[in-house]
Amino acid sequence: MRTRAALVKAAAEEFDLAGFAGTSTTKIIKRAGSTMGALYFHFGSKEGVAKAVMAEQAADLPELSGRSGLQRLVDLTLELAQELRSNVLLRAGVRLAVEQGAFGVQDDTAYQLWITRFKEELIVADALGELREGVDPGAFARVLVGAYSGTQLLSRISTGHADLTERITELWQYFLPAVARPEVIGKLEFGTRGPETGT
Amino acid sequence: MRTRAALVKAAAEEFDLAGFAGTSTTKIIKRAGSTMGALYFHFGSKEGVAKAVMAEQAADLPELSGRSGLQRLVDLTLELAQELRSNVLLRAGVRLAVEQGAFGVQDDTAYQLWITRFKEELIVADALGELREGVDPGAFARVLVGAYSGTQLLSRISTGHADLTERITELWQYFLPAVARPEVIGKLEFGTRGPETGT
Repeated sequence: MRTRAALVKAAAEEFDLAGFAGTSTTKIIKRAGSTMGALYFHFGSKEGVAKAVMAEQAADLPELSGRSGLQRLVDLTLELAQELRSNVLLRAGVRLAVEQGAFGVQDDTAYQLWITRFKEELIVADALGELREGVDPGAFARVLVGAYSGTQLLSRISTGHADLTERITELWQYFLPAVARPEVIGKLEFGTRGPETGT
Repeated sequence: MRTRAALVKAAAEEFDLAGFAGTSTTKIIKRAGSTMGALYFHFGSKEGVAKAVMAEQAADLPELSGRSGLQRLVDLTLELAQELRSNVLLRAGVRLAVEQGAFGVQDDTAYQLWITRFKEELIVADALGELREGVDPGAFARVLVGAYSGTQLLSRISTGHADLTERITELWQYFLPAVARPEVIGKLEFGTRGPETGT
């Protein structure tokens, strides 16, 4: 399993540098210090490696602070905006998930994982009484994943993700009145996260 | 100029079928009944043709009905959802704009065109008193273009755009409370458009 992890990490670095078309399996195994046999054993093809990078894009994310409910979901979306600038596995996985059509892949696994993750946080927010009546955690989680994906894409193309934190904060301003109770909206913190309280 | 238009149309059809990597300039000129000299004269490269398809993605859209303000913007976004299923130039242009990183292009022209178009409709909506106080037409236009791009991407990967009209209608439900005055929200029509009234 250490070989597999090394191959995913090396593939992410190569895909991040050169995209899917510009990356060869030879470059991946060289960077990983592995063999073509191991790559094909674990993934079957370059497409298979790319699917693994997409599906495991969140594997290197740091733990979130211990805030809960809607604030935790806001924190997560802002952390992702930061991490997209420095976390190679996340950035390569997101990029491949967006560009997958260019290399003949149609795989929504990575999107479904984020929908599930966002939905979990929204279910907690709902249990805490933070959501407006009638808001469906699963439905809004899907809306948020779609909107987030396009927002990061536009931010990458326009500014290389430099304005992404600002764009995600702005996105929340347009979603919150439909989603959160008014007294909750006023208490949500954006920008830099508060001190770690959960560990 | 007829040659140029024929090349853009033929390129859109090829890119729609096979994506950027799967399309050759030879296939494009054959389909267009044109020559390699003409293609390079007008576009310089395959990337140049792809940029033209992206930038001119809206050229074949039908005229909207004569409704105005926020309803017109809603109509436009729902029409785009329909057209993405049948309009090859739009579908290829949107796909290339999303996947452009895979072939080394970074060009936000197509996104900026939609931001401008959406902003124009929002300025009319604002003049009609439909927007909530403080809503910035340019800022929300950019948010909407980002959110729309990702929503159509997720819909394409998950359902081949089959659920896109439903997803865009849902997206509006989550944006409207922040954007439109309450009395306006109740009057907006989704789903099938009303009768043509403007022509």
